[in-house]
Amino acid sequence: MQSQIPFTEQDEMYMARAIELAKKGRFTTTPNPNVGCVLVKNNQIIGEGFHQLAGQGHAEVNALAVAGEKAKGATAYVTLEPCSHYGRTPPCAEGLKAAGVVKVIAAMVDTNPQVAGKGLKILSDAGVEVAFGLLEQQARALNLGFFKRMEQGLPYVTCKMAASIDGKTALKNGQSKWITGSVARQDVQLYRAQSCAILTGADTVLVDDAKLNVRQNELPQSLPTDLPLRQPVRVIIDSQNRLTPELALFSIENDVIIFTTKVDKSKQWPHFVRHIEVSGINAKVNLTEVLQQLAQLQINNVWLEAGATLAGKMSELNLIDEFVFYLAPKLMGCDAKSLVNFPELTSMQNTVDLTFNECVRIGDDLRITAVKKLIKTT
Amino acid sequence: MQSQIPFTEQDEMYMARAIELAKKGRFTTTPNPNVGCVLVKNNQIIGEGFHQLAGQGHAEVNALAVAGEKAKGATAYVTLEPCSHYGRTPPCAEGLKAAGVVKVIAAMVDTNPQVAGKGLKILSDAGVEVAFGLLEQQARALNLGFFKRMEQGLPYVTCKMAASIDGKTALKNGQSKWITGSVARQDVQLYRAQSCAILTGADTVLVDDAKLNVRQNELPQSLPTDLPLRQPVRVIIDSQNRLTPELALFSIENDVIIFTTKVDKSKQWPHFVRHIEVSGINAKVNLTEVLQQLAQLQINNVWLEAGATLAGKMSELNLIDEFVFYLAPKLMGCDAKSLVNFPELTSMQNTVDLTFNECVRIGDDLRITAVKKLIKTT
Repeated sequence: MQSQIPFTEQDEMYMARAIELAKKGRFTTTPNPNVGCVLVKNNQIIGEGFHQLAGQGHAEVNALAVAGEKAKGATAYVTLEPCSHYGRTPPCAEGLKAAGVVKVIAAMVDTNPQVAGKGLKILSDAGVEVAFGLLEQQARALNLGFFKRMEQGLPYVTCKMAASIDGKTALKNGQSKWITGSVARQDVQLYRAQSCAILTGADTVLVDDAKLNVRQNELPQSLPTDLPLRQPVRVIIDSQNRLTPELALFSIENDVIIFTTKVDKSKQWPHFVRHIEVSGINAKVNLTEVLQQLAQLQINNVWLEAGATLAGKMSELNLIDEFVFYLAPKLMGCDAKSLVNFPELTSMQNTVDLTFNECVRIGDDLRITAVKKLIKTT
Repeated sequence: MQSQIPFTEQDEMYMARAIELAKKGRFTTTPNPNVGCVLVKNNQIIGEGFHQLAGQGHAEVNALAVAGEKAKGATAYVTLEPCSHYGRTPPCAEGLKAAGVVKVIAAMVDTNPQVAGKGLKILSDAGVEVAFGLLEQQARALNLGFFKRMEQGLPYVTCKMAASIDGKTALKNGQSKWITGSVARQDVQLYRAQSCAILTGADTVLVDDAKLNVRQNELPQSLPTDLPLRQPVRVIIDSQNRLTPELALFSIENDVIIFTTKVDKSKQWPHFVRHIEVSGINAKVNLTEVLQQLAQLQINNVWLEAGATLAGKMSELNLIDEFVFYLAPKLMGCDAKSLVNFPELTSMQNTVDLTFNECVRIGDDLRITAVKKLIKTT
């Protein structure tokens, strides 16, 4: 593979633009990654594009279509290595080559084993100058789910938690409406809309009679109204087959997957509901297997909106990549319900250690994001 | 009283400088307020000063000493109405008048009943132009404790809490070292150093064998090393007379006040320890009376570093003005100890409602400040 070359400020500016473009696909590209492309000639952008829907044009194709003949002699900035394989569309590496692009800068090499350097090699072999590694971290952040699925066969799991500042999610009697404010709830809708799946437990569905859908009218008003929203797949862990078809969840005609250890065939389910049997551990669904199955179904990102028990279990199994805490300016006291259930810890060495990413105000509440702390290897 | 006149950008700039100067006294002026003064003539600062120690020069006196003869014809910017009474120093209003200052702009009128407009009146009666209300909010923020004591006969209480992001302060077995990191602990030292008193319960002293002092070597290194630090008075609630003179607290020769309902005269205490008897409520010290007593002892600011029970009780009694939460990037689980103990709440209407002020990163942790939510009166 070609080594990295020094990039200029101009290069960085164009790649930053390509990253902005890629983000426009964040509600729609799944199971494909978000990709943006900018074509530049004589220090002018002559074409740009992004990937919007699987099966439709990739970012490079869309940018080349804008540039037309002018693409000859241009430099392409792409947030991800151009593809090398025939999927539903022909390989972009071939397209760039054919259009006469003379230089391709990719933010990162694609870790999809179907690509993995082959796209850049096609270009390089054809005499196109290639380079990679510009704004790689930002480019990677566009597609954490896609890359995790490619690299580990698991989706990227973001666990949402809403609590008072003293870490309580409901009063002892169960009351919890509303801990966080309406702006935070809108913000949750935005995360849902960007997720391939929403995962929760039967308990949450039964207690809240939750629909777990994306509601256009609850999204932040700053969003474009013509956004081609998709509904995430609603995934429910139901080890004891407690769900029934009468629940509000099933009043919305949109995919539901129910994971159980043994399907109960006595109930009549709507056509959009699918049951998947996985192995059990102490009569509970094997959660690792659930996530592996979801990855096989091309689910890149899972938005986990669960109760304290499922969230605790997922955390114990090291299946959560990121936490989004919404903390409300309230104190609820020691009798209220805790955020996350673990077996009792007996040493401070055993706490779950995170790294805070960001803390921002969302209405009257705070949104704090954190990722698992990287273990330093020596 | 003279009405407010429109202030210029220049006025605001000089008052902002006076506020900066006032802050220099924040470790030392108690029981006096922090005050800064800037003298300006022909658009040039000809003298500035701040109040550093009770009994020594007020801000105006210090600024006049710098300006000397040049003060004649100058404008004075003062963060607080100049005093009108003979205390340990003569009244500043008289001093400004005598120096020939022609205009005095005060950020706010002093709510100390000994002043309360009298300072400005002395000046106005002498033909000096006076105005007030410039950057009043910032000026008030300099002395929340002093003003609360003047206006309500109670100190301003800031409750410090350190917890994991799921709101836990210790494991079930009591382990809690360390939840927050060293930078957060330095930050706590800085708050302690600015407080007149540190308040806690006998439990905390007994369990942690805490010294509750300000440790110069644990303060942020960015502080000036010649800072004239004072040690806050250490105030302990000991309803059951459980403290003993052998505790580490008493190894540091610095004021301790122990509040109890009935002094136990059988123990021998060091000379710097004082017991105060207050009334009891169900065999517990009356906390409102404790704070009233502290205000009478000229304590402006109390830094409350208590366990979940005392903090909960103080909150229930509406005695806490501000919360400082240090949240660490850890999850400790449902069996760990909660941040604050209240009697069980049965309605979300009864949560303690706060308003978040600020969230900043302190080392690996977050510091979130919040104040009691103002009840809207209609």
